[in-house]
Amino acid sequence: MLLSSLHSVHDLRRLSPDKLAQLADEVRDYIIEVVSRNGGHLASSLGVVELTIALHYVFNTPRDKIIWDVGHQCYAHKIITGRKDRFASLRTYGGISGFPKRDESEFDAFNTGHSSTSLSLAVGEAVARDFKKQRYDIIGVIGDGSLTGGMAFEALNHIGHLRKNVIIVINDNEHSISKNVGALSEYLMKLITGSLYNRLRRRSHTIIKRIPRYGNALYEFLYKMEASLKGILLPGHFFEALGIRYFGPVDGHNIELMIDLFRRIREINSGPRIVHVITKKGKGYEHAEKDPARFHGIGPFDIKSGKSIATGGISFSAVAGKTLASIARTDKNIVAITAAMKLGTGLYEFEKIAPRRFFDVGIAEQHALTFAAAMASKGMKPFVSIYSTFLQRAIDQLIHDVAIMRLPVRLLIDRAGIVGDDGETHHGIFDIAILKNVPNMTILAPSDALELRDMIYYAVRHDSGPLAIRFPRGKTDDASIAFGKHNRFTPGAAHKLTQGNDVAIFAVGDMVSRALAVHDTLKSHRMKSTVINLLSIKPLDSTTITQIVRQTRHFITMENGIMIGGVGEMISAMLPCALASKRLFSVGFPDAFVTHGKNEDLFTLHGMDVDSIVTRLLRACGK
Amino acid sequence: MLLSSLHSVHDLRRLSPDKLAQLADEVRDYIIEVVSRNGGHLASSLGVVELTIALHYVFNTPRDKIIWDVGHQCYAHKIITGRKDRFASLRTYGGISGFPKRDESEFDAFNTGHSSTSLSLAVGEAVARDFKKQRYDIIGVIGDGSLTGGMAFEALNHIGHLRKNVIIVINDNEHSISKNVGALSEYLMKLITGSLYNRLRRRSHTIIKRIPRYGNALYEFLYKMEASLKGILLPGHFFEALGIRYFGPVDGHNIELMIDLFRRIREINSGPRIVHVITKKGKGYEHAEKDPARFHGIGPFDIKSGKSIATGGISFSAVAGKTLASIARTDKNIVAITAAMKLGTGLYEFEKIAPRRFFDVGIAEQHALTFAAAMASKGMKPFVSIYSTFLQRAIDQLIHDVAIMRLPVRLLIDRAGIVGDDGETHHGIFDIAILKNVPNMTILAPSDALELRDMIYYAVRHDSGPLAIRFPRGKTDDASIAFGKHNRFTPGAAHKLTQGNDVAIFAVGDMVSRALAVHDTLKSHRMKSTVINLLSIKPLDSTTITQIVRQTRHFITMENGIMIGGVGEMISAMLPCALASKRLFSVGFPDAFVTHGKNEDLFTLHGMDVDSIVTRLLRACGK
Repeated sequence: MLLSSLHSVHDLRRLSPDKLAQLADEVRDYIIEVVSRNGGHLASSLGVVELTIALHYVFNTPRDKIIWDVGHQCYAHKIITGRKDRFASLRTYGGISGFPKRDESEFDAFNTGHSSTSLSLAVGEAVARDFKKQRYDIIGVIGDGSLTGGMAFEALNHIGHLRKNVIIVINDNEHSISKNVGALSEYLMKLITGSLYNRLRRRSHTIIKRIPRYGNALYEFLYKMEASLKGILLPGHFFEALGIRYFGPVDGHNIELMIDLFRRIREINSGPRIVHVITKKGKGYEHAEKDPARFHGIGPFDIKSGKSIATGGISFSAVAGKTLASIARTDKNIVAITAAMKLGTGLYEFEKIAPRRFFDVGIAEQHALTFAAAMASKGMKPFVSIYSTFLQRAIDQLIHDVAIMRLPVRLLIDRAGIVGDDGETHHGIFDIAILKNVPNMTILAPSDALELRDMIYYAVRHDSGPLAIRFPRGKTDDASIAFGKHNRFTPGAAHKLTQGNDVAIFAVGDMVSRALAVHDTLKSHRMKSTVINLLSIKPLDSTTITQIVRQTRHFITMENGIMIGGVGEMISAMLPCALASKRLFSVGFPDAFVTHGKNEDLFTLHGMDVDSIVTRLLRACGK
Repeated sequence: MLLSSLHSVHDLRRLSPDKLAQLADEVRDYIIEVVSRNGGHLASSLGVVELTIALHYVFNTPRDKIIWDVGHQCYAHKIITGRKDRFASLRTYGGISGFPKRDESEFDAFNTGHSSTSLSLAVGEAVARDFKKQRYDIIGVIGDGSLTGGMAFEALNHIGHLRKNVIIVINDNEHSISKNVGALSEYLMKLITGSLYNRLRRRSHTIIKRIPRYGNALYEFLYKMEASLKGILLPGHFFEALGIRYFGPVDGHNIELMIDLFRRIREINSGPRIVHVITKKGKGYEHAEKDPARFHGIGPFDIKSGKSIATGGISFSAVAGKTLASIARTDKNIVAITAAMKLGTGLYEFEKIAPRRFFDVGIAEQHALTFAAAMASKGMKPFVSIYSTFLQRAIDQLIHDVAIMRLPVRLLIDRAGIVGDDGETHHGIFDIAILKNVPNMTILAPSDALELRDMIYYAVRHDSGPLAIRFPRGKTDDASIAFGKHNRFTPGAAHKLTQGNDVAIFAVGDMVSRALAVHDTLKSHRMKSTVINLLSIKPLDSTTITQIVRQTRHFITMENGIMIGGVGEMISAMLPCALASKRLFSVGFPDAFVTHGKNEDLFTLHGMDVDSIVTRLLRACGK
């Protein structure tokens, strides 16, 4: 076992290159073992084990900086940078995060979680490094998927312009590398990374530019010629057009080849350089190689069979996908859009029945919303399925391209509220606070799968402006839902679920079941409560809310989101002062980011578990 | 006069092509005349007069759709599509908008105002058109600047993938067209747009693809070869790499040439096509040609001299730019970043003294924030100068790349509050409601130029997390500010400006002077008021606010932003119920978008003028 004696990157660098493939296997096995227990991002992490080892072997981390785009592929990175033992606590409360985190290690350059930020971070770091007159390498590692995000292009454009010394590794797991192309390009790559070629290239450019009058034009011409020729033989066309030198492709599972290439590219030591690395998602674990999408983010599973350890029920995402698919069978104007989250959002159900009306636009949330806006303007009925945290990428498009024109774009906001193990960067706790400020919006929150289904049926009919349905990550017990029928839903009408004059509990979405549990516990303390399922956040059912507050002694609010700008504040702002003063407290997240861990642990941490709420209620009522 | 008898696009299409240059001159004169009175986006509108005429001449608008990116270049479009007479009311309250607006004309495909959305709209419209089995052309017109915005790339990527029938006109006003290059490319362009070439091309592709086994690879190779060859001779390299056919460049001031080209490209009638048009900003008006930046968006000016009709004073933007420049002379860690708004944000002052520490990243707000985040992590002191409305583009970056890591990125939020004539798409009324929800943020709002200066000095020292200073569009009378010195500013401390126990007025930013005017008017009604300049929105000075509310009978709040999620709500949420009930009302914008017009007219429209506020106060107090 090499891994057992590897305690730091220094130990890694003392190994001879021919041992590294064995180390990779051991790291891979360890990752599979931990993720099979804790769940996590398996396929992407397995894909970059060799790449990670090669990078840390060649570059002098943590002095040299590796910036992982998204960051979900950082497991091998964590294991070989001194976190091997703690890695068993991956994604558990108080344990190792599933993403890079500055607080956790000096090897983690930035906290990340969302896509397409690494190139902006790399060039920002490079500019600062040069101002500080420091010398070290900066390597941004970005997947081909992340490159479809617009901000990666914004950064590439800036990098091409500034020509700072940065290395960009494109981790391409979409394309396979055929033996022939591989060999040819390997030869060419060696040629163009060779020091002779580069010396000649630099010198000839200098000379050409000095030619009076025609020098610059000639340089421009030759530069384009070189780029074009490489473009025919190598897939670097696109980047060369932006003024960034391109090398590759190289087999991302051949450590020795990568070490050789990284050393050559490091030597060039000037300007932005792109290295195109071809990897395979799920590499080395048969089940993940076969079905990388299912193993992208996965819960606990059986290593041998690859089967998920079943928890039963059906996810809210699947309910949304199946409902929409069911309606789309007859309503040919429905189209569905995802930003690279077909599986996560349940839209694969839609794609199955209406592939031509299904659009995966890449990791491009901005484009997704504006693309949908245009379709809505023509009478199509676009549904954008999107995680709450990623919708943050498209707030301007929601305001500027959708809401101003009152276009009926329907948002299915998945993973609204805390999402557990993924932590800070992924909790969907800001959507209510941001969306409720947008004029012309309708915002709904179902408390169970049937309500979600009925709201989607309603959304199809709603054509007076944008509409959002926010629902949580997780499963519902009710697996016997009929997707082809529904109950009529009317926005703006809250449902009273229980009756009791001591306290009213206004609950949103998945907090309703918790509110009912509070109600039950209160009964044993001889307190009677009215539980209200709000259903509609905008418009709020002000009539019902006012009436109920009038009839009860006190009230509280419960929501799975931040309290600032949340539903509790909305209700207080809406009520006449005499009634608003009946509020005891709001249940929700405070003005801080929320760490990772099981949802229930995070709720308890913030006093949002049933016992804490009851205790607080009893105390506030003097009992 | 041709213009006087032009009442619709039909009249335009009846003119013979050789008359169109004269028409362009007349349209241009009319634009200059109206903008010299009303102010507006002159340089960009003058640049596309010929392009606009050529497009409407060739394409069958409004059936065919022209989608203007940003939309500030739509003046000629409005004049020749039936709005000639109303055009004199440009940008005035109730008059013609300075941007395309669906409510105004069927020729305006979408409401726009922000950059880089046209390609997403074009492909969305094309998909819907094809579902509806309709046949018409869709033309997205996008500037080279707008192409630097990431979402334009997201859309290009999607367009290259879907291969829908759309025409993209790149309005390039950065590059000039030399005679020789022009002639060569004109020849090539005719060749590749010719019907023979295109028939051959299509047929050969079909044949090649049928070759067993090697067909697709060969097609791929030939496609790349063609693209690469064109890439050497024509600047279309980049787009061909994305799979979009490229034509041009063509002289955008030669109407007959453009008509010929557009007709040929229209004939091709399949797949996405890009036409590269070279124009000159400010074309045909000497002063604007010489200084297009100043004539980008300009107030009333004298046509003959080109001089602005002086209004005196100094803009808040200039105060911000000069202050930052002044501090940066000694503090070498300060860097300044703009997303293509160097002039608008006053950063030209900074560029003058520290060009190497000044970064214009293009229309790339997302990249701007994350780029700044990385620099902040290395101990640099980045200031991002950005309009409130454009900051909406970078909310996720603010949360994910800045706030989670508590990185001290300083935002100078310009044009916060309503901005007058630009209207709905440009008012900066959402920033408080969105930003106050972000953990770790500090948000400040100066009421005058001196406070703005002092806050910027403070911001340099503030290193515990992100900080935003929001200030309005417009000028301050105080032109004698010393930028090299300052008074110490402490966040979280509100200033009491007047004393009176009848009503407390909590005012934010530019509402403070209005609050003082209310105070003065109330005096004549024998009401005494305490005016408080809040200065700090987050943290709020809860101690002072609570104390003052305790001492006064009633209170109101005043802010230049939407009321939902605004400072009024924050104060109510923060106060104990007994005190919160003293609030009479909030002054701010309701839950709706705000139209264009002079700021004071818009304030009056929403009951935010001094008289309305006083009347409402007196009534609420029973006087």
